[in-house]
Amino acid sequence: MPLSLLYSSLSPLHFDFFTPSPSRLESLPSPLPMAVSEESLRQSAVDAQAEAVRALKALPGAPQSEIDAVVEVLKAFKIEAGAAARRLQAALSSNGDGSSSSTREAFHQAVVNTLERRLFYIPSFKIYRGVAGLYDYGPPGCAVKSNVLSFWRQHFVLEENMLEVDCPCVTPEIVLKASGHVEKFTDLMVKDEKTGMCYRADHLLKDFCKEKLEKDLSLSPEKVAEFRHVLTVLDDLSAEELGAKLKEYGITAPDTKNPLSDPYPFNLMFQTSIGPSGLSPGYMRPETAQGIFVNFKDLYYYNGNKLPFAAAQIGQAFRNEISPRQGLLRVREFTLAEIEHFVDPNDKSHPKFVDVANLEFLMFPREEQLAGKSAQPIILGEAVSKGIVNNETLGYFIGRVYLFLTQLGINKDRLRFRQHLPNEMAHYAADCWDAEIECSYGWIECVGIADRSAYDLRAHSEKSGVPLVAHEKFSEPREVEKLVIVPSKKELGLAFKGSQKMITEALEAMSEKEALEMKATLESKGEIDFHVCTLGKTVPISKKMVSISMEKKKEHQRVFTPSVIEPSFGIGRIIYCLFEHSFYTRASKAEDEQLNVFRFPPLVAPIKCTVFPLIKIQKFDDVAKTIAKSLTAAGISHIIDITGNSIGKRYARTDEIGVPLAITVDSTTSVTIRERDSRQQIRVSIDEVASVVKEVTDGRSTWGDVMWRYPTHSALHAGEE
Amino acid sequence: MPLSLLYSSLSPLHFDFFTPSPSRLESLPSPLPMAVSEESLRQSAVDAQAEAVRALKALPGAPQSEIDAVVEVLKAFKIEAGAAARRLQAALSSNGDGSSSSTREAFHQAVVNTLERRLFYIPSFKIYRGVAGLYDYGPPGCAVKSNVLSFWRQHFVLEENMLEVDCPCVTPEIVLKASGHVEKFTDLMVKDEKTGMCYRADHLLKDFCKEKLEKDLSLSPEKVAEFRHVLTVLDDLSAEELGAKLKEYGITAPDTKNPLSDPYPFNLMFQTSIGPSGLSPGYMRPETAQGIFVNFKDLYYYNGNKLPFAAAQIGQAFRNEISPRQGLLRVREFTLAEIEHFVDPNDKSHPKFVDVANLEFLMFPREEQLAGKSAQPIILGEAVSKGIVNNETLGYFIGRVYLFLTQLGINKDRLRFRQHLPNEMAHYAADCWDAEIECSYGWIECVGIADRSAYDLRAHSEKSGVPLVAHEKFSEPREVEKLVIVPSKKELGLAFKGSQKMITEALEAMSEKEALEMKATLESKGEIDFHVCTLGKTVPISKKMVSISMEKKKEHQRVFTPSVIEPSFGIGRIIYCLFEHSFYTRASKAEDEQLNVFRFPPLVAPIKCTVFPLIKIQKFDDVAKTIAKSLTAAGISHIIDITGNSIGKRYARTDEIGVPLAITVDSTTSVTIRERDSRQQIRVSIDEVASVVKEVTDGRSTWGDVMWRYPTHSALHAGEE
Repeated sequence: MPLSLLYSSLSPLHFDFFTPSPSRLESLPSPLPMAVSEESLRQSAVDAQAEAVRALKALPGAPQSEIDAVVEVLKAFKIEAGAAARRLQAALSSNGDGSSSSTREAFHQAVVNTLERRLFYIPSFKIYRGVAGLYDYGPPGCAVKSNVLSFWRQHFVLEENMLEVDCPCVTPEIVLKASGHVEKFTDLMVKDEKTGMCYRADHLLKDFCKEKLEKDLSLSPEKVAEFRHVLTVLDDLSAEELGAKLKEYGITAPDTKNPLSDPYPFNLMFQTSIGPSGLSPGYMRPETAQGIFVNFKDLYYYNGNKLPFAAAQIGQAFRNEISPRQGLLRVREFTLAEIEHFVDPNDKSHPKFVDVANLEFLMFPREEQLAGKSAQPIILGEAVSKGIVNNETLGYFIGRVYLFLTQLGINKDRLRFRQHLPNEMAHYAADCWDAEIECSYGWIECVGIADRSAYDLRAHSEKSGVPLVAHEKFSEPREVEKLVIVPSKKELGLAFKGSQKMITEALEAMSEKEALEMKATLESKGEIDFHVCTLGKTVPISKKMVSISMEKKKEHQRVFTPSVIEPSFGIGRIIYCLFEHSFYTRASKAEDEQLNVFRFPPLVAPIKCTVFPLIKIQKFDDVAKTIAKSLTAAGISHIIDITGNSIGKRYARTDEIGVPLAITVDSTTSVTIRERDSRQQIRVSIDEVASVVKEVTDGRSTWGDVMWRYPTHSALHAGEE
Repeated sequence: MPLSLLYSSLSPLHFDFFTPSPSRLESLPSPLPMAVSEESLRQSAVDAQAEAVRALKALPGAPQSEIDAVVEVLKAFKIEAGAAARRLQAALSSNGDGSSSSTREAFHQAVVNTLERRLFYIPSFKIYRGVAGLYDYGPPGCAVKSNVLSFWRQHFVLEENMLEVDCPCVTPEIVLKASGHVEKFTDLMVKDEKTGMCYRADHLLKDFCKEKLEKDLSLSPEKVAEFRHVLTVLDDLSAEELGAKLKEYGITAPDTKNPLSDPYPFNLMFQTSIGPSGLSPGYMRPETAQGIFVNFKDLYYYNGNKLPFAAAQIGQAFRNEISPRQGLLRVREFTLAEIEHFVDPNDKSHPKFVDVANLEFLMFPREEQLAGKSAQPIILGEAVSKGIVNNETLGYFIGRVYLFLTQLGINKDRLRFRQHLPNEMAHYAADCWDAEIECSYGWIECVGIADRSAYDLRAHSEKSGVPLVAHEKFSEPREVEKLVIVPSKKELGLAFKGSQKMITEALEAMSEKEALEMKATLESKGEIDFHVCTLGKTVPISKKMVSISMEKKKEHQRVFTPSVIEPSFGIGRIIYCLFEHSFYTRASKAEDEQLNVFRFPPLVAPIKCTVFPLIKIQKFDDVAKTIAKSLTAAGISHIIDITGNSIGKRYARTDEIGVPLAITVDSTTSVTIRERDSRQQIRVSIDEVASVVKEVTDGRSTWGDVMWRYPTHSALHAGEE
């Protein structure tokens, strides 16, 4: 790989102009960008190329042909970036009735305002001025969450017969030492040396570089390139490297301008103490997965000692972020839904892969990222057969995740599966893909799908001493050659007394090669010097002290540590992206107002239907109550709105929380049902209402299906807005 | 109230014989027992009476008539206690097929063994030797929990249009200071002075007294009475009283016999720190209710500024128990489901009370407890109209809780609603009832239903400064007299300069009485000395500095703090009791084995149906797969068991996790469906199977209903056991 993705692959022609000198780079490790968004990548390409053009033009005697070539590349980049921006804009704007938010930020504000005003979420403990990174789901948000989780259970747990478990959040330290979280689950932090205020070191460096690039017009091309490069490699910097950069740039505490401490790792787990003694440290779990791993043995037994099987868990997880940003996307407490699919490492095929093999969707393999290309539609079956995706089981889950997200209402054009770059992946992982969803914050990782090989089970086996392994019984025994080392405890005891035990253990621990060498030496010379680490010295071993042989043995089974394939869902992130993808605005009938709508599918909608008596008279109220009862009996969540507001206002109010159907009671025999997005209405008799609503909200029929069966009601009710 | 419930009300005749001397009692406060179980009450009555008989017999010259009278009372008590024990036994034993666990303990062991073996639950982090008080739900337990919570949502949230919210577990200190948890949510603890090991002080005293009573045959009647009394008042002892008792009895650390520290309060919340500074203490919430209270303002607005309305929340709660006991009943992390129903304190009627008024079930009002009686069936409507239950809304929830629990499968004969005794209730509470369920641990509080008046909202209003109030708009304005105090800032400023602000505030803060007195004095004398606390001194106030008047004002609304009625469900406790109430054993066909069965209603059953190919041949496997697909499509959770076990073994395995229906594939056109408890079978064609199963498991039909429609299959499949 060349030194820098941005400069080399996007602009090979003028690589030399704005590559930082190697000496400055020495302190910067792996130059590959981590999780760079497509959009920022494109914009960086345009910016870098523009710099190149400028620099070339400023160069005395630069040949016009070369300048033209560079300008051509710049134009191409601009077109590509413009197309990406338009795609975004198209996705953000409304259903084509003319109104659209003019910018990403305006769109973001419109969604967030609606979400907060209608209590989809609420900053937690608001009356006490809140706590950064903690949010409540209010009534409609809570209902959406509950619907998403029910569908997750249906789509994954029920469909695949997964073993669902439910483990506590409070976790003793030893478990998270084994998993590596106590040592490694950290962010680098700096402190204001006078006030003690804490900051994320990378945030300060990022903010500094961004501001320089945006506001300092006197920057030399070299400086521009340098700051850009820093932004690219930010996530890979060590504490020392980050500290050096902060010092080099003279970065101080943003609030006070005081000097900052050196960066040091801050563990992101909420720590607590289990029991009253203060001697049992514990943490609030940072993920739910560990609860499954430590139960592997029992779950394997529960599954009849058969592989493959999957366990699943939905629950709260906690990360004590240093300084939470990005609203609902980076929070200190969140709901995870995780699957651990245990599989024989020698056979990662999946019997149901055929069911998803023909799906085609945006994938962003490692090679395309490194080549500076963008995500492309790929047929999943081909991705697996070509080896782009490591194995069928991983591919199967990628396909299932795609179906899950799009059925929830995620826009498939703003969903991509991005493969981890080599430097993003843990050394033990076989392959990792993130489902990334584009929203106003950029491309957001919402689901991680990783083949973690045998790492987690091995880690807990080692720490606990309990073997977490699977067995493959052979249909008939297989003959294998096995090394057998039998130390003679008696002879060793006579010769070495108290050291006998350690010497015995050291002999038994010899590798096949060591043992066979010893055997040869003992046979030729009768004695050998043997180094015992645990004693820290060498002892003479004679022939009678140990017997070494290769024996043929019949084996009836193979014992191995299963691989685990882990799809891990950030439920809050998925829900936030769903809010954005579902949101649009349309002009009111009088065109004096923009009305907000969430186009949730019935599956997700917090309430399936509303009931409005057209005017406030007893007989309509009675009909409304009768209908409400039949809806309750059918298990359909609904509300009755008997406020005296105009019917249009009432429609607008329920559109704004994404209620798919509205029933207006305007007679005592039949009522109208209005669909939220088309605003079409049909007339249905009172005793059929609940079954029609159920049919549509259960997903058994579409609105289009039922439209044909009933007379349309063309006159808009007074005041549909 | 007389001094001691046990001695006075149950045996007034011989009260004097075994009442501890008043001097010893002085250190003991409120003599009323807290949450004493009916059974222990009965057994205590028998024991106490037996003591009375013994003491009387030992008394020289006691008249035979009096002895006879005491013996009669003893007999009556024994009969009553025996009946209670038999009721329990009847409940514990199986459906009448002859097998029954012979003791409560054996029954307990049988349930717990089955639950652990079939992974209903698993001690958490078992491979690391676990953590006391933390349990995982394994696959069937997790499914039962999920079903119970779904039904809770359906029965309460959907049926009553409650506003469900979802707040974080991590809670900043200020919230829990306002609620009183930081100060008062404690248990008394003692430490081994040498090892630092911690114990619950009341547990040590309880264990000591129990052991003395059980094993020390030489105890004097006075001592027996004393130890019993201590057990009765245990929960009411202060730290000092507990410490004095431990010292008096010479109680030492159980494990080491080392001396113990004095008892001191240990806060039961898991403490942590929010953010990296270490300056923002937080706790894992001990209940979910506070998240609702702090959101009252927003929720009231969401409900259109109308009362009554209810908010609800399901979530994890945490209590860092000093030494958890009682398995799943007293744990360190648990799921709560809480409802806060906000209501006008002047109108606690409920429009749907009529729907539950005719229910009749076991209630245990305060008066019956104090009179030593037992719970009796009472019609709910009468309990409210007679004032036994404080108000209709409280009564409505008691009725709804009764329906919820019994529909889950709780045995109505082992469910009672016990009213709190005066000393159990917080001073602000209007009335409290616990739904108690009897299991092998005794009567267990599973749901608390409390009218907490305005306490919680007031506490958060005060601490946050945000008024958490409701408004009642008057249909026409009402005239009220109001005090109006208008300090003259100009005059006060001239006279007192910098102190003007504090004096102004002090004047405005005067009570009506103070202000009217000042007005009178100013009018008569023109000046008055006024003490300003915030200045710490007295200042002379003259007539021109303040105007005080009573003015008639028209008020358009009443502003008040709503009362809250709180049903709070310990989901884990309900589930454990449900396990016990559903469990029974029956002999295998060969009568060589006891088989375990959970008679879960379909609503609760972890899996609704199993599919067994009778023998292992391809065509039966294919049929099984076809049926499985149709079950999945119908949303019915199921498993296929293709182990080669006998059909009887396979039935036994699914009975043991409470699967209601089993489908055996014994042909390619039709199959048999077997019901778990009756073991009856019907024959149904393959394309009807899913709809029949759905009908029964949805609760639309009973097994009895469908039995009539299909031919019964009388021949037991080979090996039904």
